[in-house]
Amino acid sequence: MTGYHLSKSHPRYKSLYYRDLLADGVKRGVTSLQGLTAHGRGEAFDYLLEEKTCHFAQKATEAAASLLLLSDYPVLSINGNTTMLAAKEFISLAKILGAPIEINLFHFSVKRIKQIAVHLKKLGATKILLPDGGILPKVESARRMISKEGQVKADTVFVPLEDGDRTGALIAMDKRVITVDLNPLSRTARSATITIVDNIVRTMPILIETTDAYKKKSDKWLQAKLDNYDNQLVLSEAILTIRKNLTALSKHSVSYDKINRT
Amino acid sequence: MTGYHLSKSHPRYKSLYYRDLLADGVKRGVTSLQGLTAHGRGEAFDYLLEEKTCHFAQKATEAAASLLLLSDYPVLSINGNTTMLAAKEFISLAKILGAPIEINLFHFSVKRIKQIAVHLKKLGATKILLPDGGILPKVESARRMISKEGQVKADTVFVPLEDGDRTGALIAMDKRVITVDLNPLSRTARSATITIVDNIVRTMPILIETTDAYKKKSDKWLQAKLDNYDNQLVLSEAILTIRKNLTALSKHSVSYDKINRT
Repeated sequence: MTGYHLSKSHPRYKSLYYRDLLADGVKRGVTSLQGLTAHGRGEAFDYLLEEKTCHFAQKATEAAASLLLLSDYPVLSINGNTTMLAAKEFISLAKILGAPIEINLFHFSVKRIKQIAVHLKKLGATKILLPDGGILPKVESARRMISKEGQVKADTVFVPLEDGDRTGALIAMDKRVITVDLNPLSRTARSATITIVDNIVRTMPILIETTDAYKKKSDKWLQAKLDNYDNQLVLSEAILTIRKNLTALSKHSVSYDKINRT
Repeated sequence: MTGYHLSKSHPRYKSLYYRDLLADGVKRGVTSLQGLTAHGRGEAFDYLLEEKTCHFAQKATEAAASLLLLSDYPVLSINGNTTMLAAKEFISLAKILGAPIEINLFHFSVKRIKQIAVHLKKLGATKILLPDGGILPKVESARRMISKEGQVKADTVFVPLEDGDRTGALIAMDKRVITVDLNPLSRTARSATITIVDNIVRTMPILIETTDAYKKKSDKWLQAKLDNYDNQLVLSEAILTIRKNLTALSKHSVSYDKINRT
């Protein structure tokens, strides 16, 4: 894949594995070059979150499962990075919900759209939507090109790993937005209805399991779950966790230097 | 360049501009795919530094200018990302100092070395050094391949955007190392003589201007500047600033949403 052997014993194995997977995505025409940079940015925030699913992400995931199940027409929006990191999980979630997967790219190209569609079909996706003339008002990037059968009609849109200004535009259209974003300070994180501050490769299996389990619950139970959810609180908890981890890392740094000096 | 129009009105214009510039570097054979991910990690830390040059970076830049001017044989080490982000500024600094620019890559390839050399020559670089059999002991990566006329002989090496284990090896050889690293917790940041915690595109013009201004100063003045510099303090200040910004950003996030709700 990358011309070198990545040993499973490497202390950064997981992180390097996904980095290689995205580089492979570029070679396949699925991931954009800018997607690699966006992933690197996520890596840094994940590092500051100690690369684990925190309690606030768990809470957000439970609210997300409730909202998806309560929605009349949820749509799952996928891009190049998400395709490489979580295509199988996206397809599983779409099947549980009976929801379409809509391809939406910031760095638009017909070739990439096609490659992503081929990739999703190979993995068993059935309802795949492409931009078909639908327009998201006030969005300047290619993200504005949406599907009339998808985001135009949706009451809830799942937009993980978002790098554009789409979330605010969808909210302004009175749609609910669920995102997965490792940066709790991003515009997307702050404007979404529900923000899962976690790595998508850790979140998706939990979201699938939770959504599947919640299928048995009543709408009243799901609505109560949602009513008790506070996205601002979740974002504050994420920011405070990063602060706390940074303090711990800097103390470790100081003691490390003390050891090295003596 | 990327098949889409990046609008100057985009709130993340600057960040996206440099992301595109590095993607263009990959197409030109100058930047590695891994370099794009490394850049993304830097973006995250830059975000936490509010994307501005802080007082600790200013102090480090002044110390760096002093050290470069006091050195008998400073060498400026360049890689793929630095070439795309700051080649012109590297060449200006090299001219002020009469110092060579040495190409040193973590993801080594003869083709990339050649592309970088061509790029530097086009921009007017005169003294360009390539790996010529010099070896940096105890470094496992391709970074060990250095120039006998460059890093082997240097008393001070400028190694911005370092992604390897070279800094420790150079320090072990009793050389002084100046780095530019947005992550104050990185191994490079922690082992360098002087660490400028800033974005290279903001730092280089300041470093050039400071070095040029300091050329008029006496060695005694420069040495006093250097003697008063404490890199551990600078790193601590950088970590504390990130912590403080996180607190402020989390408060801003709350008040911003309060405004939006009313």
